[in-house]
Amino acid sequence: MKSILGSKITLTLFGESHGDKIGAVIDGLCAGIKVDYDFIKECLNQRNPSIEGETTRIEDDDFEIVSGVFNGYTNGNSICILMNNTHFDSKSYMKESVRPSHSDYVSYIRNHGFNDYRGGGQFSGRLTAVIVAAGAIILKALETLNIEIGYHIKQCKNVLDRNFNNVIEDIKYLNTNKVLVLDDIYEKIKAEINQAKNNNDSIGGIIQTAICNLPVGLGEPLFDSLEGKLSNALFSIGGIKGVEFGLGFDFANKNGSEVNDPFRMDGNSIITKTNNNGGINGGMSNGMPVIFNCVIKPTPSIGKTQETININSRTNTTLKIQGKHDSAIVRRVGIVIKCICALVIADLLVTRYGTDVFYKGKLD
Amino acid sequence: MKSILGSKITLTLFGESHGDKIGAVIDGLCAGIKVDYDFIKECLNQRNPSIEGETTRIEDDDFEIVSGVFNGYTNGNSICILMNNTHFDSKSYMKESVRPSHSDYVSYIRNHGFNDYRGGGQFSGRLTAVIVAAGAIILKALETLNIEIGYHIKQCKNVLDRNFNNVIEDIKYLNTNKVLVLDDIYEKIKAEINQAKNNNDSIGGIIQTAICNLPVGLGEPLFDSLEGKLSNALFSIGGIKGVEFGLGFDFANKNGSEVNDPFRMDGNSIITKTNNNGGINGGMSNGMPVIFNCVIKPTPSIGKTQETININSRTNTTLKIQGKHDSAIVRRVGIVIKCICALVIADLLVTRYGTDVFYKGKLD
Amino acid sequence: MKSILGSKITLTLFGESHGDKIGAVIDGLCAGIKVDYDFIKECLNQRNPSIEGETTRIEDDDFEIVSGVFNGYTNGNSICILMNNTHFDSKSYMKESVRPSHSDYVSYIRNHGFNDYRGGGQFSGRLTAVIVAAGAIILKALETLNIEIGYHIKQCKNVLDRNFNNVIEDIKYLNTNKVLVLDDIYEKIKAEINQAKNNNDSIGGIIQTAICNLPVGLGEPLFDSLEGKLSNALFSIGGIKGVEFGLGFDFANKNGSEVNDPFRMDGNSIITKTNNNGGINGGMSNGMPVIFNCVIKPTPSIGKTQETININSRTNTTLKIQGKHDSAIVRRVGIVIKCICALVIADLLVTRYGTDVFYKGKLD
Amino acid sequence: MKSILGSKITLTLFGESHGDKIGAVIDGLCAGIKVDYDFIKECLNQRNPSIEGETTRIEDDDFEIVSGVFNGYTNGNSICILMNNTHFDSKSYMKESVRPSHSDYVSYIRNHGFNDYRGGGQFSGRLTAVIVAAGAIILKALETLNIEIGYHIKQCKNVLDRNFNNVIEDIKYLNTNKVLVLDDIYEKIKAEINQAKNNNDSIGGIIQTAICNLPVGLGEPLFDSLEGKLSNALFSIGGIKGVEFGLGFDFANKNGSEVNDPFRMDGNSIITKTNNNGGINGGMSNGMPVIFNCVIKPTPSIGKTQETININSRTNTTLKIQGKHDSAIVRRVGIVIKCICALVIADLLVTRYGTDVFYKGKLD
Repeated sequence: MKSILGSKITLTLFGESHGDKIGAVIDGLCAGIKVDYDFIKECLNQRNPSIEGETTRIEDDDFEIVSGVFNGYTNGNSICILMNNTHFDSKSYMKESVRPSHSDYVSYIRNHGFNDYRGGGQFSGRLTAVIVAAGAIILKALETLNIEIGYHIKQCKNVLDRNFNNVIEDIKYLNTNKVLVLDDIYEKIKAEINQAKNNNDSIGGIIQTAICNLPVGLGEPLFDSLEGKLSNALFSIGGIKGVEFGLGFDFANKNGSEVNDPFRMDGNSIITKTNNNGGINGGMSNGMPVIFNCVIKPTPSIGKTQETININSRTNTTLKIQGKHDSAIVRRVGIVIKCICALVIADLLVTRYGTDVFYKGKLD
Repeated sequence: MKSILGSKITLTLFGESHGDKIGAVIDGLCAGIKVDYDFIKECLNQRNPSIEGETTRIEDDDFEIVSGVFNGYTNGNSICILMNNTHFDSKSYMKESVRPSHSDYVSYIRNHGFNDYRGGGQFSGRLTAVIVAAGAIILKALETLNIEIGYHIKQCKNVLDRNFNNVIEDIKYLNTNKVLVLDDIYEKIKAEINQAKNNNDSIGGIIQTAICNLPVGLGEPLFDSLEGKLSNALFSIGGIKGVEFGLGFDFANKNGSEVNDPFRMDGNSIITKTNNNGGINGGMSNGMPVIFNCVIKPTPSIGKTQETININSRTNTTLKIQGKHDSAIVRRVGIVIKCICALVIADLLVTRYGTDVFYKGKLD
Repeated sequence: MKSILGSKITLTLFGESHGDKIGAVIDGLCAGIKVDYDFIKECLNQRNPSIEGETTRIEDDDFEIVSGVFNGYTNGNSICILMNNTHFDSKSYMKESVRPSHSDYVSYIRNHGFNDYRGGGQFSGRLTAVIVAAGAIILKALETLNIEIGYHIKQCKNVLDRNFNNVIEDIKYLNTNKVLVLDDIYEKIKAEINQAKNNNDSIGGIIQTAICNLPVGLGEPLFDSLEGKLSNALFSIGGIKGVEFGLGFDFANKNGSEVNDPFRMDGNSIITKTNNNGGINGGMSNGMPVIFNCVIKPTPSIGKTQETININSRTNTTLKIQGKHDSAIVRRVGIVIKCICALVIADLLVTRYGTDVFYKGKLD
Repeated sequence: MKSILGSKITLTLFGESHGDKIGAVIDGLCAGIKVDYDFIKECLNQRNPSIEGETTRIEDDDFEIVSGVFNGYTNGNSICILMNNTHFDSKSYMKESVRPSHSDYVSYIRNHGFNDYRGGGQFSGRLTAVIVAAGAIILKALETLNIEIGYHIKQCKNVLDRNFNNVIEDIKYLNTNKVLVLDDIYEKIKAEINQAKNNNDSIGGIIQTAICNLPVGLGEPLFDSLEGKLSNALFSIGGIKGVEFGLGFDFANKNGSEVNDPFRMDGNSIITKTNNNGGINGGMSNGMPVIFNCVIKPTPSIGKTQETININSRTNTTLKIQGKHDSAIVRRVGIVIKCICALVIADLLVTRYGTDVFYKGKLD
């Protein structure tokens, strides 16, 4: 396991789905940043199941910050966030019948059978709760630099949302109206998820994310490029199987003359006329919004009977998954993406501008 | 800049497009691995321009290994590979008119105007030559463990190749016939590229890659997952704007019941019936071939007149790019992908099995 | 702050002297290692104050392992150890009168005055408790490879112990008799510490440590040498101001012919006749016991009135430290050295032999 | 091997004693720093043998910078420095009779006999030449922040120099007079070395180093402390066996009341009355000069006949070392210490203040 993300701002995770506690340690955040407990709670709520077809495991997600905060402000020390696991039922998990397309089999082999198989153990989506809590602290730090991250559900099965267009406006719309889509399609998404649930099945989708107001030149090419660092972090979220920036895979059948982004002056500012490159040139931000899509595969835990093996006896068998699971995680994963991006961006900002960049609240 | 890739097997790059020399240092490769100079040359040849519409900059790509090899075998020290730049013409590059969708603008800002703007400087595709040379050394090390990497051009503009199917057979076919596509479409691809050249334009495409015979459990989740480490490295290759594993973005409109990969016994081996997850579960290899796609955007350097700005005077202007450039790099980038993957896989193998894994030639 | 130690086996620390909880996360330890709670407690006891002149802050040091252990064995996930702070009194600490030779002043500047000044905050020796708990888990892992670490108090003020001689025998003697010195001088040491206490003063000392049964070739020269990695970790322990290997500073006035360690055959084994180099050649273990000394400065917290400044008003002032402190930490720091060494050695072993080296219990 | 030092400013080394070329790559240095070729040459000259008893291998030490510099200034890319090896004689080196107290034996085992044994291969002091060249570039970058590093020979066998006292003045004295000692003892040192040479023997010594004008709070405690990072780098220099800060090992028999450094106001500045802690509190610089000592063991290569083993036949044998070697390296190693410190300090500065700190030339 490599449970540490980042270089200058690091996130260390611990905990298992059915253990007593899960937690995260943020290291490298400078002193003097206000910690907003309500905002953390608000972010955690966005991750909680709230619609029909999402998991029936409802955790209250109360959290405790046991270090790194003194009198409401970061004190420069590593910040440990703890959360309790309370609402789980380990009975329905079997160690030996490994769930298709899950980590069970690989984890069993890798850990010589000593893995905590209950609820996926260390591979559980449960750990994304503390990623969100940690990211929420960092999001507030990014605010000191006016950096904002927004996301919407671009696709859920066959329901499509429009792309970000005027990104600043779009994010304002999403925030003001507390919605997760740009077009009026949320009921259709709920219907898709509900139908999947009724079919004992699951469905996938796409989250589109935008990061606004990054300084020009963020990212460390060649090998800690903005695309590389973001994608590395994003692929740690269970279920994400593809990441594309700007036009992404649509670049494949395009001509350069169609998709190059011409520079032009906008008053004293330099902008690009289009943003097909998703705000990134040469691995670094070019000042335009950074835009990328993540595809989330259908949750592998489904109620239908599936073929699999018994890992102990090494024989073919079938499996009907019980337990609490989601028919779609696409909605819930949006805030996780936002929060892990915040951590990556903060890491790159501190790398480039030094440890106190958020305390200073400016980049020069 | 972050010119170092990897943790245990590292690659350090140096050099600029129009400087005297470019080079790479491999650190962490154990002693006792035979270095095959002919194979390195062969890999470099796959990167060289060879069809109409690719760059007219023809470098002989002679290389010199100045350390780390003693009597034909690695000696345990870091390995430095040097190559000369000889065939370039700096006259046609202008510092001030930044090329759209290139790194020029960002690099200028980031480097306070001290960047070597000639041919893209440190951001030039020229540096992929030493990535290939380094990767070729590592590919031979992977062979001691029977690990093989293959790729084909899955798409070039509107021409599509079929997907990998029986991967081992497909790679054998590609190698035996020294071709880059699985279907008989190579002439069509050449025609597309030639047409783009005649139009003073460029085109994009997709490379599909497969890695065979990885042990179960390679990758360090959560945060050095196989997907994360590969994608981070892949995005360092100029022009790659999306990476997807297995079905990738096609997962978005699928049901779990359609795309879950059931386990089953195959004699004494555990396999999956389908491989929609591209050989990766929970961030680690599951024993099936690891399969992924990379989209390459159309080369931004095109012969058509484009709008841009003068970065010095901060005024709008137009630009007609001269110099040597490709109308498509999709063919040439395949071997670069293969070689950078080799480096990532070697790094993960050494992380998991220790520094001498290639000398031992076995994994227990 | 950089609260993470190591590369493959990592230790992440969190907590402050007067916060609710302190903790440590170990990442990278393979599954299948038995966790011995009694042994952890035993190691913690060695760190506890037990003689006259050591701190009157007595923590029960109960600990909780909240992740990474399943049914008594490591499960491959990161291991989080939590301990409560209960026995402290923050009243006696003043933020503004910075204690001489302490971190107070630097921490105040570095953290813009937001530091938790109570008891030294994140710089408190209190955090060594969780280093010991984490190291105790790792010591048991090292036992699977027969690697043993021992230490004795080589000097405390003017009282001197003899050097390690026959190291294996000496360590057996120390362990069997549960003593901390090789000669019969413990009462003299206690008297020195007691006298310092009575004088409202403090005293320094030297710990000599030996690591036995390392394989030949451990350490990653040039830049992760055994000496370099050990010293880097050791200097993180508050109060250590010098580290020397083998003869150390006594080399300065020696001739090569006096101190070179000749190799010779000992049956089928290769040994050196003397061990002036402390078991390390070229940055790597040579198979002989690794021996090194750490000097610990007199505890800066003393009861005498001292000159200092008021950091807020920036004026000269005087300070008489109250609170709970030690007149000597040399005895208590021995187990901390042993435990942090265990972490470094484990990190190097995993780097060299792979993630499962402790599960396999052998090095080939 | 781990041939890379540092995190944000990194040094990658390559080359062997008797290979064609040695080299170093600096990564992470910002664009816009003037590169002073004469100063590099001057630093290299300080490392060259110049007195009786030092090695007769005289390399011209011509160097070439093949990347990262454009029109005399750094361009933001990694900087590769190359040097040729010309003046060596491999005949006198035997692979099988391993030299006592050298890396030969360990390197043979570690590298399965594939090591380049000639002249110590990758473990040769020859590589310090490129460390010096790289460090010289960095020393000029440090000058933009007024940071200065000085050293003197504090001890050579029985000849002792006085300690740094008024550090700024002392360094000025050393630089102005181009001398390496503070007292008038240089002739005595030369006599000691000459005598060692005439005896076919070697001698050790101590270098004392001071770093002036560091900002308060440099170093990343707990685990990248100033002491830890410096010592880790210093132990990579062959022959260094101990590092101590401030009073170092003399702390052992002191009282706190004797050695605590009281703070006091000096005008508007905060200083300490004494500097027994060598300018470091809590792992971070406190604004006073950072002072430390390194002990260098007597060069293991001596002309006397020594006992050793034949590593191939595994039998006892004797060895009389021929070849070019030093009777003392203490004088030559001073500039290497200075240069490697420069790299560590630069790395910590960039970590704390961001990538452009040297371009800005100020710390806020």
